Amino acid sequence: MQPQVLISEVGPRDGLQSVQAVMPTPDKLRWLDALHAAGLREIEVGSFVPAKLLPQMADVAEVVRHALTLPGLTVMALVPNLRGAEEALRAGVHKLTIPVSASEAHSLANVRKTPEQMVDEVRRIVALRNELAPQVQVEAGVSTAFGCTLQGEVQEDDVVWLAGAVAEAGCDDVGLSDTTGMANPAQVRRLFTRVRSAIGAKTGAAHMHNTRGLGLANCLAAYDVGVRTFDASLGGLGGCPYAPGASGNVVTEDLVFMFEAMGVATGIDLGRLIEARAPLKAGLPGEPVYGMTPEAGLPKGFRPTTA
Amino acid sequence: MQPQVLISEVGPRDGLQSVQAVMPTPDKLRWLDALHAAGLREIEVGSFVPAKLLPQMADVAEVVRHALTLPGLTVMALVPNLRGAEEALRAGVHKLTIPVSASEAHSLANVRKTPEQMVDEVRRIVALRNELAPQVQVEAGVSTAFGCTLQGEVQEDDVVWLAGAVAEAGCDDVGLSDTTGMANPAQVRRLFTRVRSAIGAKTGAAHMHNTRGLGLANCLAAYDVGVRTFDASLGGLGGCPYAPGASGNVVTEDLVFMFEAMGVATGIDLGRLIEARAPLKAGLPGEPVYGMTPEAGLPKGFRPTTA
Repeated sequence: MQPQVLISEVGPRDGLQSVQAVMPTPDKLRWLDALHAAGLREIEVGSFVPAKLLPQMADVAEVVRHALTLPGLTVMALVPNLRGAEEALRAGVHKLTIPVSASEAHSLANVRKTPEQMVDEVRRIVALRNELAPQVQVEAGVSTAFGCTLQGEVQEDDVVWLAGAVAEAGCDDVGLSDTTGMANPAQVRRLFTRVRSAIGAKTGAAHMHNTRGLGLANCLAAYDVGVRTFDASLGGLGGCPYAPGASGNVVTEDLVFMFEAMGVATGIDLGRLIEARAPLKAGLPGEPVYGMTPEAGLPKGFRPTTA
Repeated sequence: MQPQVLISEVGPRDGLQSVQAVMPTPDKLRWLDALHAAGLREIEVGSFVPAKLLPQMADVAEVVRHALTLPGLTVMALVPNLRGAEEALRAGVHKLTIPVSASEAHSLANVRKTPEQMVDEVRRIVALRNELAPQVQVEAGVSTAFGCTLQGEVQEDDVVWLAGAVAEAGCDDVGLSDTTGMANPAQVRRLFTRVRSAIGAKTGAAHMHNTRGLGLANCLAAYDVGVRTFDASLGGLGGCPYAPGASGNVVTEDLVFMFEAMGVATGIDLGRLIEARAPLKAGLPGEPVYGMTPEAGLPKGFRPTTA
């Protein structure tokens, strides 16, 4: 059965940059191998940011080099600006993801630019991509799309405007991120529907957090209105270090279980996915790793879509 | 704003009978007061079972007596058989709930009766209710409706048959319980829709567990197909002691947060609901209490439906 949804694993970037400890490079490579062996076919492997800001990502070029050897894998990296994009393109990634924040307060705190200035930066990154590596995909992820711990409510009009502006600037797809765990299912359905009206097939991933336990309900809501790409993090590792009080990406294991149980093919082997927790734990000793499906085990008589 | 969903708190029954410790009666009464003060208007306050089987419920008649003094509260009790129903009716409860299991293996393990024998028992309980207290509501809760840890898959036809049989036997409403945390949103939508086709307005509550993290997603799925009553347990206390591997009722705090954030009125004050954890913890020292919304706090700028 062909996968019907794309689970985009963000742990090696979003997870690892959110913890204090630095995972040694050999552990990262083993973890990537295990994620790939489980069937993941898109992984955000790191971010191209100065090592003095995020020492966890100092080895990103080496990690990309290894990830490029894994067959069928879309190797994605986060780039906050043009300089990072140039490094990522030279490293050979297949896809760039650029965070743009719908909350001005969060945008300034995160990248010291207004949302409008980030749209300009996106335009420059797209131009560079067109010049250096036109086959590379460029994604924008609209962060704080459902609320902001700094400014509180984020106007839906601001989110729709920003999604339209970065699509117009040349992004191939635009996702919406619940950076701060404030989304609810009604809002998820409303906002993805509005964004789809504005930018059509460029509507991209749902990046949900589980801060208040609603992560899977919000993914279900996004699925209901046609979203087919979902960011998730193995063991729920990660959050956003610049959004105070935020925590907890959606757990890949639980998300995959939900879809497979629903009969929605993910292309992922749940048993192997749970095994991929071992190299994560080995590389980050003492770090809490979440997930209810791994704790409970698969239900008696469970049939994945591959059965 | 009038409540648009009914949150039925099951912690004092389902929660307390699942833990080893016995909560002292004065703590139970304080906890009930706090739940009522938060706005809960239906509480399953205990079960009428022999005290030698469940010493946690030995004081149920006293607990009912106190609960009956709380204005506007529907006082519900679980009764596994005719004898329990008679005691509950004499104690003056407003509503009986009778567990009937769609899995024969679970039914035999839980009450030592087949599903067919339980339908006969339900018929006898309804006759007694008609004789002693015709104003009392009788609910049946179909347990293992979405799967069973003992027999594995449960046929949907068996669930629809059992729901129809207990409705025919005179129950006022019939809920579906994911006793073992095996439900998924697609199944929840399908099965509640089928049951509604069979028994119409007698279709009752969704009783979901969070065993694999899908509790809220399953409640959302049930809401989508018209369910308006949801069982939940403060702090996620409880599960089913006779279903090995099962654990974790849906957390009332997270469920209420989801609905209120969606703009669906629950009639419950989230701040006071979180305060109601204090008497629970005081009465069960050392027992783990769950809930992500209480941990994270309410989001900045959050507006409940009462605002």
